[in-house]
Amino acid sequence: MLLSQLLGERYREKPSDASIPSHIFMLKGGYIRQVANGIFSLLPPTKRITRKIEEIIRQEMDRIGGQEVLFPVVLPRDLWDESGRYDSVGSELLRFTDRSGAGCVLGMTHEEAAVHLARSEAKSYQKYPFMIYQIQTKFRDEPRARGGLIRVREFTMKDAYSFHTSQEDLERYYKICFEAYERIFARCGVPEVISVTSDSGMMGGAVADEFMLLCDAGEDTIVTCPHCGYRSNMEVAEFEHEAIERPESEIQKVATPGVKTIDELVAFFEGKVPPQQMIKATVFAVENSDRVVIVFIRADYEVNEAKLRRIVGANVFPLTDYSDVDLAFGSLGPYQLNPGKCEVYYDETIAHANDMSCGANEDGYHYTGVCMDRDIKPEKYIDVAKVITGSKCAKCGQELKLSRGVEVGNIFQLGTKYTESMGMTYTDKDGTQKTPIMGCYGIGVGRLAACIIEAHHDENGPIWPYAVAPWQIHICALSNKKMDVMPIAKDLYDKLGGQYEVVLDDRGANAGVQFADADLLGVPIRIVVGVKNAQNGQVEISTRDKSIQEVVDIADVPVKIAEIVEKIK
Amino acid sequence: MLLSQLLGERYREKPSDASIPSHIFMLKGGYIRQVANGIFSLLPPTKRITRKIEEIIRQEMDRIGGQEVLFPVVLPRDLWDESGRYDSVGSELLRFTDRSGAGCVLGMTHEEAAVHLARSEAKSYQKYPFMIYQIQTKFRDEPRARGGLIRVREFTMKDAYSFHTSQEDLERYYKICFEAYERIFARCGVPEVISVTSDSGMMGGAVADEFMLLCDAGEDTIVTCPHCGYRSNMEVAEFEHEAIERPESEIQKVATPGVKTIDELVAFFEGKVPPQQMIKATVFAVENSDRVVIVFIRADYEVNEAKLRRIVGANVFPLTDYSDVDLAFGSLGPYQLNPGKCEVYYDETIAHANDMSCGANEDGYHYTGVCMDRDIKPEKYIDVAKVITGSKCAKCGQELKLSRGVEVGNIFQLGTKYTESMGMTYTDKDGTQKTPIMGCYGIGVGRLAACIIEAHHDENGPIWPYAVAPWQIHICALSNKKMDVMPIAKDLYDKLGGQYEVVLDDRGANAGVQFADADLLGVPIRIVVGVKNAQNGQVEISTRDKSIQEVVDIADVPVKIAEIVEKIK
Repeated sequence: MLLSQLLGERYREKPSDASIPSHIFMLKGGYIRQVANGIFSLLPPTKRITRKIEEIIRQEMDRIGGQEVLFPVVLPRDLWDESGRYDSVGSELLRFTDRSGAGCVLGMTHEEAAVHLARSEAKSYQKYPFMIYQIQTKFRDEPRARGGLIRVREFTMKDAYSFHTSQEDLERYYKICFEAYERIFARCGVPEVISVTSDSGMMGGAVADEFMLLCDAGEDTIVTCPHCGYRSNMEVAEFEHEAIERPESEIQKVATPGVKTIDELVAFFEGKVPPQQMIKATVFAVENSDRVVIVFIRADYEVNEAKLRRIVGANVFPLTDYSDVDLAFGSLGPYQLNPGKCEVYYDETIAHANDMSCGANEDGYHYTGVCMDRDIKPEKYIDVAKVITGSKCAKCGQELKLSRGVEVGNIFQLGTKYTESMGMTYTDKDGTQKTPIMGCYGIGVGRLAACIIEAHHDENGPIWPYAVAPWQIHICALSNKKMDVMPIAKDLYDKLGGQYEVVLDDRGANAGVQFADADLLGVPIRIVVGVKNAQNGQVEISTRDKSIQEVVDIADVPVKIAEIVEKIK
Repeated sequence: MLLSQLLGERYREKPSDASIPSHIFMLKGGYIRQVANGIFSLLPPTKRITRKIEEIIRQEMDRIGGQEVLFPVVLPRDLWDESGRYDSVGSELLRFTDRSGAGCVLGMTHEEAAVHLARSEAKSYQKYPFMIYQIQTKFRDEPRARGGLIRVREFTMKDAYSFHTSQEDLERYYKICFEAYERIFARCGVPEVISVTSDSGMMGGAVADEFMLLCDAGEDTIVTCPHCGYRSNMEVAEFEHEAIERPESEIQKVATPGVKTIDELVAFFEGKVPPQQMIKATVFAVENSDRVVIVFIRADYEVNEAKLRRIVGANVFPLTDYSDVDLAFGSLGPYQLNPGKCEVYYDETIAHANDMSCGANEDGYHYTGVCMDRDIKPEKYIDVAKVITGSKCAKCGQELKLSRGVEVGNIFQLGTKYTESMGMTYTDKDGTQKTPIMGCYGIGVGRLAACIIEAHHDENGPIWPYAVAPWQIHICALSNKKMDVMPIAKDLYDKLGGQYEVVLDDRGANAGVQFADADLLGVPIRIVVGVKNAQNGQVEISTRDKSIQEVVDIADVPVKIAEIVEKIK
């Protein structure tokens, strides 16, 4: 490819609407252009990169017995009615009607389509287990698209679906998929992607793992234990609950005029009573119901809504409309509470605690000296607290680390959620009809490309790993008035072009412009044909990561390149 | 691939809802399953075939300098407002709103997206010419989806867009693309695809060619001249207008009570006046206007609406609402006509004709003996007649042939329709702003796969050309009670698997079932491991098209296969 012909303008200025490295470099380097909010056109360099990523994914899916198929982007509403998700999924599912008035959705995930296909094509136990996958466009009407290809509305995804005749077989295959994912990320040059235990969310099912790249651009919080290797998404992260041992104490009712928040209560006690000694109440509404849930938790912790959702069995939201609930908001406490129709939960952070302060369920009053076992006697405690800085690992007791992470892949053990609701069965050996058990496995292709930049860049641009680089070799030709080096550069371009993907900067631009553009394109190996070296029959070869930089005889270039490729591929 | 694991049921019965070979075999052979009207899931064999077709297309697009990009499936309404097509295209353009209320469309073609991208990325003449292409999902809300993958609503298409600084350069590149298309169809095994001159329809622009496979499944009518090679879509087909020389005659007004149609008029004259001696009137409404158009044409011809559309400059429809038009419908004729606000056209089939019969613009009366040059004196004649059986070639005068054809590709010289309406400019050498000139080039991938079946099948299934076959070798293992031949079959499967894509029928089914399935999968080379031959250390090798059928020693199989591949690839 001649750089003069490559479609895409490159810019020196940092784009005003981008703040994370992948977004900045993809705009500056002519990789992507926004068409609408969260919707992008991919320019040639990105398309070259995503094709390579897709090919790696395809090879690894085929290797574990995957059969590639293609499901539609536009799906009939009926299928989503069958699974129940037409109603249960929010407005990220784009719904519309076609010219005949039939209800349709844009596929944001394809469990329904996979079951629709598999239920007519795998009627005998002999076909099981099997896995089908596709690499296809998806649309998710995200309310907050952001960060270039990190969070978009339209994206290319590899999604795979496996079908099994027993939970054991699903677990066996789940492990095989897990290992394929590790190979995929390693081959794409991001072995630093880690797996974390995760919440299966709207997908249903029990066991789920997410593959995360830890980086500042991430929206997820990842909890890791540097000591024992424990890794989890914040949504399901566990930690050790350290009981603060204090003696029993007497309950006292204290007038606290105007005090409504924990901060105000701490200030009221002039800092002598820390939040660790206070009980706070958080109140939630349960989706699609009139249920109200009160959670009592130690005041230095927050409620993890994902954990609470699993306990409650439905989505929860902080209560905002108090009109129907007869509670003393701002002064809620577990002692002598009349919860009315509200459900009350006690978090493990306050289990068996003595000498706690809390609201007195009466405006302007609090209690001190409340002892859980003596005064409240909950039937049980639940685990709904979010890990905080300083929390200890539930496995080994060492301090946990909190990081930001971007999810680039996920795998789920779905169980029979879709096969059962959609009436998929097979005939078993003994002639009986049984319901298959399902797993699903996703990777966002464009997001993975962006994550590779997050993991591999310097201040000037991406440093593409060899296996996914848009080109492998970038030749800069720096002629001056003394000498035209373009013939040497073109000769190398022709010679190397048979074996490698080569881009030649044939524009005659100055060194500053050529190097800046080369940095933005991030090609792993660079050959600089400059006048001084050329006069000695030499060129400079370097790697984009600057680990190699040598001047070599022009005749030796092919051998030298082969050596470098062997090292970095 | 072991056939026991291949997803997809195969059937012996002809599906009730299919009538053309590709649709029948794709359903019987487990290639496709319908998800909704005109929307299909592709099963593994089809996906393997379309991937190969896509790779051939990609190679040929890259070879002529194409740069692969990816445009969105969901496009903002704004872009289609800019081009004017949001309003001008009918309900095959699927329109909807997203969660924020923004208007969107599903991309049915991507001229708007291509200009959107190119106008920000190609601002200097130095970047021109260039061509960008994508292979991507499209959605066209067809009112009449039919024939399996022949006419669907959702489909994968390669669409390419070239940009030029002069009409000459567009024409030069158009020719290059034309040749690339011929290579693509030849490499996909359908060199019988022919190009025909076509109408550019809603795409705008002047010159257009369609690539057609002539077959009964086609919806288009193709006009060809077996003598001189003239080829055209019916929509723009020309033919020689043979004047029927007759002497001048006297006009007579004849009472024709109750006569409204040409058939009735022929009957009224007791067959003594043929339709060739009659003038018929056809009345059209012009889309989005109150214009009404009357076309006078010889009564044995029909008006070609595509031709009339180009003359009128807008879509035309047969007039159905007569309430606003003060004409004597059923008795319309060119003599003493008061057309009011209607526009009147005369087709060349009646040019200079003498002694013609026509309506008298009065219920129950006709004229005979009308002479065009004497009585009507039209300013000009136009060419809007459809070719009919017996029409002669305009180039060589020999009889034209009418065939059915399926369009598998098309190329258009668009001119500045989109670049101008969407305000795309570049800076020319002299510093002035100019509007680029555009071409566009499409191929339907799934439809091409179906067309390959239409061109290559027998009564039992598809005969896939080697380059696009889902697998290259199909091994049948026919054990019986005397001998288990599976070890021999597996050994061949392993040996050949390194070099070819091989499917092994490992199900132990009887010969009838195995051969029927092999015919449906249409793999070009078949190896049958049967007991009788195996006892002699031999197997049978044949090709799906039955041109080769030999018994060979097992040790010679790799050499024999290589020979056959060389012959048929």
